[in-house]
Amino acid sequence: MTDTNTNMRLKLPITCFILEIILIILFGVLVEYDKETDAKKWHHSNHSEYDNDFYYRYPSFQDVHVMIFIGFGFLMTFLQRYGFSSVGFNFLIAALALQWATLMQGFFHGVHGGKIHVGVESMINADFCTGSVLISFGAVLGKTSPVQLLVMAVFEVTLFAVNEFILLSLLGTRDAGGSMTIHTFGAYFGLMVARVLYRPGLDKSKHKNSSVYHSDMFAMIGTLYLWMFWPSFNSAITAHGDDQHRTALNTYYSLAACTLSTYAMSAFTAHDGKLDMVHIQNAALAGGVAAGTAGEMMLTPFGSMIVGFLAGIISVLGYKYLSPILESKLKIQDTCGVHNLHGMPGVMGAIVGAVTASLATKEIYGDGLEDVFPMVAAKGRSASSQGGIQAISLAVTLGMALVGGLLVGFIMKLPIYGAPSDASCFEDSIYWEVPGDEEGHAGQLSTVKTEEVAKPEETEKLN
Amino acid sequence: MTDTNTNMRLKLPITCFILEIILIILFGVLVEYDKETDAKKWHHSNHSEYDNDFYYRYPSFQDVHVMIFIGFGFLMTFLQRYGFSSVGFNFLIAALALQWATLMQGFFHGVHGGKIHVGVESMINADFCTGSVLISFGAVLGKTSPVQLLVMAVFEVTLFAVNEFILLSLLGTRDAGGSMTIHTFGAYFGLMVARVLYRPGLDKSKHKNSSVYHSDMFAMIGTLYLWMFWPSFNSAITAHGDDQHRTALNTYYSLAACTLSTYAMSAFTAHDGKLDMVHIQNAALAGGVAAGTAGEMMLTPFGSMIVGFLAGIISVLGYKYLSPILESKLKIQDTCGVHNLHGMPGVMGAIVGAVTASLATKEIYGDGLEDVFPMVAAKGRSASSQGGIQAISLAVTLGMALVGGLLVGFIMKLPIYGAPSDASCFEDSIYWEVPGDEEGHAGQLSTVKTEEVAKPEETEKLN
Amino acid sequence: MTDTNTNMRLKLPITCFILEIILIILFGVLVEYDKETDAKKWHHSNHSEYDNDFYYRYPSFQDVHVMIFIGFGFLMTFLQRYGFSSVGFNFLIAALALQWATLMQGFFHGVHGGKIHVGVESMINADFCTGSVLISFGAVLGKTSPVQLLVMAVFEVTLFAVNEFILLSLLGTRDAGGSMTIHTFGAYFGLMVARVLYRPGLDKSKHKNSSVYHSDMFAMIGTLYLWMFWPSFNSAITAHGDDQHRTALNTYYSLAACTLSTYAMSAFTAHDGKLDMVHIQNAALAGGVAAGTAGEMMLTPFGSMIVGFLAGIISVLGYKYLSPILESKLKIQDTCGVHNLHGMPGVMGAIVGAVTASLATKEIYGDGLEDVFPMVAAKGRSASSQGGIQAISLAVTLGMALVGGLLVGFIMKLPIYGAPSDASCFEDSIYWEVPGDEEGHAGQLSTVKTEEVAKPEETEKLN
Repeated sequence: MTDTNTNMRLKLPITCFILEIILIILFGVLVEYDKETDAKKWHHSNHSEYDNDFYYRYPSFQDVHVMIFIGFGFLMTFLQRYGFSSVGFNFLIAALALQWATLMQGFFHGVHGGKIHVGVESMINADFCTGSVLISFGAVLGKTSPVQLLVMAVFEVTLFAVNEFILLSLLGTRDAGGSMTIHTFGAYFGLMVARVLYRPGLDKSKHKNSSVYHSDMFAMIGTLYLWMFWPSFNSAITAHGDDQHRTALNTYYSLAACTLSTYAMSAFTAHDGKLDMVHIQNAALAGGVAAGTAGEMMLTPFGSMIVGFLAGIISVLGYKYLSPILESKLKIQDTCGVHNLHGMPGVMGAIVGAVTASLATKEIYGDGLEDVFPMVAAKGRSASSQGGIQAISLAVTLGMALVGGLLVGFIMKLPIYGAPSDASCFEDSIYWEVPGDEEGHAGQLSTVKTEEVAKPEETEKLN
Repeated sequence: MTDTNTNMRLKLPITCFILEIILIILFGVLVEYDKETDAKKWHHSNHSEYDNDFYYRYPSFQDVHVMIFIGFGFLMTFLQRYGFSSVGFNFLIAALALQWATLMQGFFHGVHGGKIHVGVESMINADFCTGSVLISFGAVLGKTSPVQLLVMAVFEVTLFAVNEFILLSLLGTRDAGGSMTIHTFGAYFGLMVARVLYRPGLDKSKHKNSSVYHSDMFAMIGTLYLWMFWPSFNSAITAHGDDQHRTALNTYYSLAACTLSTYAMSAFTAHDGKLDMVHIQNAALAGGVAAGTAGEMMLTPFGSMIVGFLAGIISVLGYKYLSPILESKLKIQDTCGVHNLHGMPGVMGAIVGAVTASLATKEIYGDGLEDVFPMVAAKGRSASSQGGIQAISLAVTLGMALVGGLLVGFIMKLPIYGAPSDASCFEDSIYWEVPGDEEGHAGQLSTVKTEEVAKPEETEKLN
Repeated sequence: MTDTNTNMRLKLPITCFILEIILIILFGVLVEYDKETDAKKWHHSNHSEYDNDFYYRYPSFQDVHVMIFIGFGFLMTFLQRYGFSSVGFNFLIAALALQWATLMQGFFHGVHGGKIHVGVESMINADFCTGSVLISFGAVLGKTSPVQLLVMAVFEVTLFAVNEFILLSLLGTRDAGGSMTIHTFGAYFGLMVARVLYRPGLDKSKHKNSSVYHSDMFAMIGTLYLWMFWPSFNSAITAHGDDQHRTALNTYYSLAACTLSTYAMSAFTAHDGKLDMVHIQNAALAGGVAAGTAGEMMLTPFGSMIVGFLAGIISVLGYKYLSPILESKLKIQDTCGVHNLHGMPGVMGAIVGAVTASLATKEIYGDGLEDVFPMVAAKGRSASSQGGIQAISLAVTLGMALVGGLLVGFIMKLPIYGAPSDASCFEDSIYWEVPGDEEGHAGQLSTVKTEEVAKPEETEKLN
């Protein structure tokens, strides 16, 4: 791929324009306001303004929105020379994905009289689907062109919607916070794409595949926003009332416990006992992923804390011991370690959800059973069947993600998207006008500055 | 202006103290709690706690608040050596402007028994007015003293309130998200101030009028918060229910489409196809500006996306081709390019609003017509008249902004505010104690460090 | 303490694991969902979903959450070489403290049938208590090991809960925003700990106890989030309706006025009139602290502005003149100047609250008196008595904080926690894997880089 032309002057505009124009046309034909956003329909019926779902869900939506654009975007800025691309490509593909997701999810979740209805719930769902794409982005970070990423987004959103439809609509699976639909799917899809795009010569850019002091600080902005707003993420589309409330609470405790075990494991697995920013930035979030399915259930704070505690341990161990093996043995170069943050904790969350579902009783949930397990409440399904369905859903998701990632990986491997050469991976200046690093000189410095200006060490040698 | 004394030891404290003491006295005389914030009045009538407007609007207010202080503040930190001033002066003038705006808007929007009533709606409106001042700040960024900016804020807030009164109260114009009142007004006011304060010798500090790598990363924080929360901005003061819901939704789609066209145009207008951070940081937001007037109307997601799509294109073209002309031909040195982000998209938003208003029918809006176009619903005005009024409002706003900016520009040009010399523009150390840049040395380094310490290049030459 | 082993390989994991396992066990035994988060209990009674307290308080909770993790965390990143620890240890001890606080506060605030009930209100209260610990952290920043901080957190949370119980439950004190319970307590507790941990040889690391340009920018993120969300902080647990609304409004005005006086005093107290980032980052927040007690009362916008105005002045004067005296005379090395941001403004807020309470009448508050001063409304207590109780509460808080800090300081002084030597204070690399600072070299550079790589100045000398 080294001799591919990385000039984006035509490739990127053509891709963006075609995709956006298709989107606009499809929105024109297919999309209309739902009854809560339409002036006529809303005023047609008699209700309080407060019944509008906007007031139940918009604050949660905004928290999710921050997670998608600031959280994911800045989490990936840890690379020393890839901050523009991390936050900038995250921005671009998220803006595309949320539009495409609105159509795909709308299509699968139910078309009303030939029309897809949109409102705050569709906005949240679209952001959720986008999150899945951004997880996959994390696996291939630094090694792909923006056009490649847009192509990935289009296909991944589509497959996400299919998988989500199978789980939520066909199987009646419960997965409010998306341990399966979002995290497991996004992670294993991305890992399979990374496998197909394996670069044997990636060590040519190895020295850029690491952080510097300030880039780690920027990444912590992403981490903390994800951490703080994860309770909103998991509860954003659960039922009104106790369900949203309980889900937020469970997630809050899971994350707190996860943070303690992450710090413990990070120090413990280092021979000099020093904390590793990679663990803190990522593994401390695993508690949110692992509470994605069971968060809305009667998991109890106690159960939530156990889940988070274990998720942090698993995640740090993954970063420390499993990631190197994935790269050397399975040829999966997982830049952000999404397998450790989203993959394993997602699977764990699915299992926790299956177990918790299988233990659901009318005794515990009372009349609230209908909100959490409508098919169990309707007597059509036993709790243990629901648990079984949850487990099957995990298998379906893994299958969809792996096969989908494999196929889409091959599509992305076509040498037409302007992917970077091995030596220019993890480098903003391939796709961005990059200013200099030092004050008082940027005016004269071009983007080739890093090559031209002698570094202190080199200055020494010159003398 | 080069020999003006930039020492702020007396100028700034005197200005701040006088202004704040005047504000406190006026608040003491004129301001009281509205019926939703007053313990006695609220409990006097019989209603649910939920009817308190706090619950409808406070989450939106906080999003707007973040846009004002983090969004605008960090968006302007792109300059390599002006971060303290960008975020710090933004903070100062916003804190002043929101207090002054409360009085001015309260005075014009209606005094109740000799008193101005305050609550969450006045807080949002004050933040909106503040936003307008911050837009103008963007045009003169790096070339003004904090005292000059405080003077600008006092006059601009006053004129903003007059213009807003003419539009919203006298003409019955609809402009919930402020395409006209906030963006068009703020941009053209600022551009005219920049024209009056034109500095022929500004190229003396040209090398500092650009970004460095980390400053561009900080600026992206501002961009993303503005982008994410713009749906809250446009919907913050629309009517309860479907109106807030629809406005947020329209803005969300407009911004998403705008992001795609911004990336496309940024790559397309660069000979090497590389993305320009200036475009991404700014033009991607034009979709929010352009949906400011029509966002609350039945614009449809389809219409919103077209608006955003075009706004992104116009904005990038403005940065690329129009800004250099404005500087060379019209002598307008627009530091942040507010003409491209707020000026043209604001005008576009006003036109879109006029067209959309002229197409409003009872058929489309149903009983919701009264919320969006009360004067049309009351049969006193036809939809096409409303459209005409909207167009006239744009002209009024442009006139007020240009004449106001001209006058205030001359007031700001008086050589008494401690403005920086041409050579010391875009430089924090004129007004701030600035620490060093390198670790382990800050203790010894004074603010003159940048001059004293040899740069690597110079070290080479020395040898 | 210089020869203490700072290796955290066993100390930190053992501490974290033991604490978290104890927490999990206690949560399992003692904690259950309250009636608003429990599926069965919520659905048992007949009410609208909107009555769930989640919708009244969750947006405020999230704002408070951001203040705790981003606000406090980034505010402390101003140190040039302590950003990982500032934001990272803030994260760790907050995650612990909020769990422990849930138990301690639940225990003191009332156990229901042997169980502690949790929901959004307990989440807010736990975050509040955590804030107090983070204030104390500010006093000892840079001079403590993470294990020491965890130990401090455990004891401080416990004492916080006792003090809070005495004030709110036994004395019937009003302190919604925590001028006393959170700020005064946290500050004087931390100052006393700092006194006990006094390091005569701290000037060995003096050159690292200062900021660099970018670290001050990161700190401004913390400042602004604290500033913007302080209205949510003070109003988070006030009564529904006008109370939450009024508290947010009062705090908003107090902060705005405080910002003006802070800038004025910062310039005025510098001989060259230059603004000092330390003042802007900290003193501009004093208005929020000082409105903590009286914010929910009928303080009026006028009164709020006076309070904020004075708080800013006092705080800047404290940084400029009092902090050096505290260090030289009282041997209190207060890294972040918490005495100026939380200590004095907290005391001021308590006094303002006592005065405002003593002026409360049925005439002013109407039926709202019951929400703000239930004991006065119930005729069991006169307004002046309430004012007296408020004043006594300040004395109690100061006593608890000073004695508590003294005792806990001695516990923290035990040479078993791996505290840094005097020369290695304010230095991340003691406890963290720290990457290099320059791009393109991080791969080869170890954490000792700062010593190895010649600085430009040294390069000059070499030649």
